[in-house]
Amino acid sequence: MAESAQGAAPQASASLIIDDATVLSRTEAALPGYPELPPDAGGRGAAHFLEHHSVGIAGNRIAWVRPVADVTAIERAAAAEVIDGRGRLAMPGLINTHTHSPMVMFRGAAEDVPTADWFNKHVWPMEVNMTDRDVRLGAELAIGEMLLGGVTSFADHYFGMPEIAGAVEASGARALLAATYFSSEGAAGIDRGVAFAEEWHGGAGGRVQVALGPHGAYTVNDDDLRRTAREASRLGVLTHIHAAENPRQTASSLAKRGVTPIQVLHDTGLLESGVLIAHGAGIVEDDVRWLAPYRDRVGVGSCTKVYLKHAQSGTTPVRLLHDAGVAVGIGTDGAAGHNTLDVFESMRLLAETEKDKLSDATWLTMEHALDLATRQSAAVIGRGAELGALVPGYLADVAVVDLAGPHLQPMHSLAAALVYAVRPSDVEHVIVDGDVVVRDRRLVHLDLSAAISELNERMPALRDTSHGTRIQDYNP
Amino acid sequence: MAESAQGAAPQASASLIIDDATVLSRTEAALPGYPELPPDAGGRGAAHFLEHHSVGIAGNRIAWVRPVADVTAIERAAAAEVIDGRGRLAMPGLINTHTHSPMVMFRGAAEDVPTADWFNKHVWPMEVNMTDRDVRLGAELAIGEMLLGGVTSFADHYFGMPEIAGAVEASGARALLAATYFSSEGAAGIDRGVAFAEEWHGGAGGRVQVALGPHGAYTVNDDDLRRTAREASRLGVLTHIHAAENPRQTASSLAKRGVTPIQVLHDTGLLESGVLIAHGAGIVEDDVRWLAPYRDRVGVGSCTKVYLKHAQSGTTPVRLLHDAGVAVGIGTDGAAGHNTLDVFESMRLLAETEKDKLSDATWLTMEHALDLATRQSAAVIGRGAELGALVPGYLADVAVVDLAGPHLQPMHSLAAALVYAVRPSDVEHVIVDGDVVVRDRRLVHLDLSAAISELNERMPALRDTSHGTRIQDYNP
Repeated sequence: MAESAQGAAPQASASLIIDDATVLSRTEAALPGYPELPPDAGGRGAAHFLEHHSVGIAGNRIAWVRPVADVTAIERAAAAEVIDGRGRLAMPGLINTHTHSPMVMFRGAAEDVPTADWFNKHVWPMEVNMTDRDVRLGAELAIGEMLLGGVTSFADHYFGMPEIAGAVEASGARALLAATYFSSEGAAGIDRGVAFAEEWHGGAGGRVQVALGPHGAYTVNDDDLRRTAREASRLGVLTHIHAAENPRQTASSLAKRGVTPIQVLHDTGLLESGVLIAHGAGIVEDDVRWLAPYRDRVGVGSCTKVYLKHAQSGTTPVRLLHDAGVAVGIGTDGAAGHNTLDVFESMRLLAETEKDKLSDATWLTMEHALDLATRQSAAVIGRGAELGALVPGYLADVAVVDLAGPHLQPMHSLAAALVYAVRPSDVEHVIVDGDVVVRDRRLVHLDLSAAISELNERMPALRDTSHGTRIQDYNP
Repeated sequence: MAESAQGAAPQASASLIIDDATVLSRTEAALPGYPELPPDAGGRGAAHFLEHHSVGIAGNRIAWVRPVADVTAIERAAAAEVIDGRGRLAMPGLINTHTHSPMVMFRGAAEDVPTADWFNKHVWPMEVNMTDRDVRLGAELAIGEMLLGGVTSFADHYFGMPEIAGAVEASGARALLAATYFSSEGAAGIDRGVAFAEEWHGGAGGRVQVALGPHGAYTVNDDDLRRTAREASRLGVLTHIHAAENPRQTASSLAKRGVTPIQVLHDTGLLESGVLIAHGAGIVEDDVRWLAPYRDRVGVGSCTKVYLKHAQSGTTPVRLLHDAGVAVGIGTDGAAGHNTLDVFESMRLLAETEKDKLSDATWLTMEHALDLATRQSAAVIGRGAELGALVPGYLADVAVVDLAGPHLQPMHSLAAALVYAVRPSDVEHVIVDGDVVVRDRRLVHLDLSAAISELNERMPALRDTSHGTRIQDYNP
């Protein structure tokens, strides 16, 4: 089989070997740019599982993926570490394509309220209380939760971003970081965002990449969006922005200015410079004409749980985007809305709700869901050429999942197990950039106990809204 | 506070104490029969969390729930076991109100297909292959998964029921067991179901209770349903039946015979004798007139994940049933469709989809969701007077949940943690009928490794459908 012959350079010596695992090497879906798709796969996608294979990692890259029988004792002896893969699955590290990591500090603090109240009465007044220290602690806690759940990369959008970058650096995680700004801040906001991008792009040994972070198409004016597009092009980075978050925002944009939020991204030059669109649940059919020409640099991060919890009356139109060739990634949004940073949960919920929404149980197959969570998520954060698959030359971001749990047995289908049954607690080891960052379900570089204690002490002050102010008004 | 004064007999000596925990003692929702509901709670429900309380268990019952400061050293010394509750939550054991436990053996074997294909092309042909031994192994695996996830009771519906009863007895779990029958079997099926009920009611030291199990309102004819109602009344047991599983079944029943499936339950006397309705996603407004008069003995088990996965175009109408005073419980259906037996997952998905379906983020509050998972689920399986709350006199079925995981921190809201963030892997200890059945996340009475090995060896034979036969035709 072609799959067994992967490993362009079998003689490359590996410093780290995941030995005799089942390997999810790569996935495919019927998207342009996925030439490997078998002709009979249609829109169903494919997931390539290789039984009894080993993964060799040299430095921060995958060196080879080979049948275990082809790995020599000399190679094992030469490796600094050999991870026992028996009864385990090695898969591409998960990618959280849209979050606000420090918001984990408000987990559970604003429940059972609609979107506008969530912002105006709860979250934006509470965020006024946050210090840089809070941001750092929140980011550490969030990164710890993500790594323990097999999430190796996350696209973050928040203020206090240098603190978050510090947490990324210390934790061993990989991230695409965008400093949030509003036009209400004047030029200071966008200046700060650009300065952060210039300082941190390629930071933490390359694990930090950056994007520009205008908050939204309704909180940043067109002039600032145009400047963002120019700066992003100059820096060669994506822009990460909330746009068409739900159908009401699109309706409001059409009523107020006659164009959809996606057309705003087009008209201000952002689509041309490349965008990570957060949510896009308000994307409409007519938006395809704006998005499709830029499918090589535009993707959408979808966070289904918050759309349901906030009763937004719409989820990301995955079918429409799929047919237009636009990548859709999996995200969790901040844990203040999503309650977890569990990308498995988000993938599962997207698959379930897509079947229901389209009244088609054969749509959004397991393999397609895995493609969204791996290759398409990598594409959405602009790393499709080196993340989201376990193939030689790709960056060594790997989650090693324990398949022995009774809730996964018997194992009729690896794909079904990953999409519909696996839990973050099944993630046993995690590797980012060739470095083991979770070993035996424990974080290697972070100790969260102090951060958790300090955040719990800060809770009353963080929740105090008696000051009567808030970050912004939500009135899209 | 009234909550602190619970414990009708503080002097009752406890053989088992859960010491210094946060205790979810009881929940409330705006349903008739919940007289404790505060006037200001409206439809939102309430959940009573008692911080720094201890739970005393004497024999198989809750003896007292008291502030930790009121528990004496003499009481602790007299107990056979004291479980450290610090940093943990003690809550009523979860109840799976509808499942087919042995179907765990087909987990992941029939994915991405609609309901009719799922039955006719996959599950019913595979079930032809099952032996009594398979049923026993499947039940053991399922019960193990449920206990480890804090599920202390389950309502099961399957064939080979004596094997399942044996697994319940060995495992320490509690169950409501119904032997499945079809009219296509003639009198043999119903005879077998009645005989099982007579033999096992009150079995396993009272942990086994029984129901009668006609498969569905479309696979069991009216004569057999009438006989079922008579036998159920004679035995004083519920009938557990699939009815109005989805809107298409209701439409089909109306087209074929001019009545809804719920009216069939009424007309055959089943509502009067008491019913656990599996799914009820096809219950319509007009059905309320049949259901409401029997709300003290009729409930619905809702399994949202399978409705979404099978694109059934409808979920259980929780609002309609709530307003009619009919209890709704949480269920998982069999793991062949649901992939897990995770009641937390099912509760969460029901809460999320209800908000979305009604376009109301304030509906189906966290407290209401907890009420569905505890008191209403207990009512649905006919045990509302002694399960679903941690109050003196109730049966001692308790899940002790570790709250320290980083994915639950910081802890702004216990209710939000339980509904939107907790994982089965957070369940640390489980007590059923006063007996510790899970300690430190390990099963006390079951060893699943042999069952898992044997089931994995059986997989090819179980999946063989070359015989060309099936249990039934799905054609409601």
